[in-house]
Amino acid sequence: MDGMDEHSTAVARVLVCLEEVGAEYEIVPIDFTVKEYQTPAHIARNPFGQVPAFQDDDFVIFESSAISRYILSKYKSNLLPEDDLRTATMVNVWLDVEYGQYNTPISTIIYDLVFKPMMGTVPDQQIVDANLENFKKVLKVYEARLSQCKYLAGDFISFADLSHFPYTYYFAGSQYGSLFNSYPHLKAWWEDLMSRPSHSHTEVHKTHLEKCCSSWKFSINFSKVYRQMKPNREVRDRVKFRFHTSIKFLDKLSKV
Amino acid sequence: MDGMDEHSTAVARVLVCLEEVGAEYEIVPIDFTVKEYQTPAHIARNPFGQVPAFQDDDFVIFESSAISRYILSKYKSNLLPEDDLRTATMVNVWLDVEYGQYNTPISTIIYDLVFKPMMGTVPDQQIVDANLENFKKVLKVYEARLSQCKYLAGDFISFADLSHFPYTYYFAGSQYGSLFNSYPHLKAWWEDLMSRPSHSHTEVHKTHLEKCCSSWKFSINFSKVYRQMKPNREVRDRVKFRFHTSIKFLDKLSKV
Repeated sequence: MDGMDEHSTAVARVLVCLEEVGAEYEIVPIDFTVKEYQTPAHIARNPFGQVPAFQDDDFVIFESSAISRYILSKYKSNLLPEDDLRTATMVNVWLDVEYGQYNTPISTIIYDLVFKPMMGTVPDQQIVDANLENFKKVLKVYEARLSQCKYLAGDFISFADLSHFPYTYYFAGSQYGSLFNSYPHLKAWWEDLMSRPSHSHTEVHKTHLEKCCSSWKFSINFSKVYRQMKPNREVRDRVKFRFHTSIKFLDKLSKV
Repeated sequence: MDGMDEHSTAVARVLVCLEEVGAEYEIVPIDFTVKEYQTPAHIARNPFGQVPAFQDDDFVIFESSAISRYILSKYKSNLLPEDDLRTATMVNVWLDVEYGQYNTPISTIIYDLVFKPMMGTVPDQQIVDANLENFKKVLKVYEARLSQCKYLAGDFISFADLSHFPYTYYFAGSQYGSLFNSYPHLKAWWEDLMSRPSHSHTEVHKTHLEKCCSSWKFSINFSKVYRQMKPNREVRDRVKFRFHTSIKFLDKLSKV
């Protein structure tokens, strides 16, 4: 999925964390149209040639979960509690659930529903249906969990909840979004997450980018976007993090 | 893969951590032959009906990575450094790499090579070949990394390295194990990992279980194994952790 990284859910995960802690950061787009992700400079940031990569002074890292943990830890955010081992562990449990149980069906569904049409290929309804069935089994567990406590790790919001944002955002906007109506606790949890200012801010990014871009097509000129996004000198001097990534992501899907 | 959980790589990951810190623990097998994983008692431990589940007094958790982190943190193991954020982050980066980049091809290969024959189905050579090609791309990145530092997160061994043990152990014993010869730093890293006492101890478990079991067949009677494994009263009183899992795993593959 090299070419689809500019719609990256991984990028969105990190952006939400940056917004949650109120960090200043500079977005440095990677130009996929000229395969910038394959250049030695980017491979040095991310050896798998993917986005995002993340830079804090001389410390350069990749992998969205590790980047997110770094940001939250550095800012001592309550979203990643570290003082009490059991509390920290419950966050880790549900981060692992998201990665191992939730993402497998939902990422396959989103790939077929969203990314395939963008690439000009036809979604495979059999794949979508099979994964919807698996996804429902996962949602049943989530509904049970969220009827016991308000958030996944307990009665406190954490990175484990926020980490679900990117894929769920795509899904909720798809023709299957109404599936959540069958799971009232899950639905309330999602609406609660969506009301976070961090998500509004990432929406603002999207809106800003939409203004910069004449089209949401795959062939978008990221260099042009970057030039328009580049903060002025005064702001850049205060910027702390550099966030190497393409920045087109989270298209709002129209309900079909 | 419900029925295959008794060969669980997830179980192996936790066992290695238990052995690394020298924890005392009781293995409580889950009898897959009577679908014990579907019972309310087990669902209460692991809502996805999988193994492992893990119990420390009244604290019950699931997901092998979260369990492993809990064990290592509780014992303040150097394998999971927490004092320095950058060091901790490099461990997180390579744990994410293992999960997101390394496991996808290797787990697919092992499923076809190892688990399909156990279930009486034929491996799909096309799937194996395609995933071997992807795996080689990942191994190239690992070779580059391990030529820069002795272990994945830096010049110190960590949970990020050990977490690779279960799948790599299967792979190294397969007919494709010689692939590692093309990556000298990777090969040296793997041999170094294999020389850890923790792996010898998990081998001892396997040997003990082999003695208990008349057969390594899928229909193995885990209850019988459990009765023979159960520690005597004196030992059980000292036992700290309970580890709910089936315990047949890590068959040594004969080279084909």
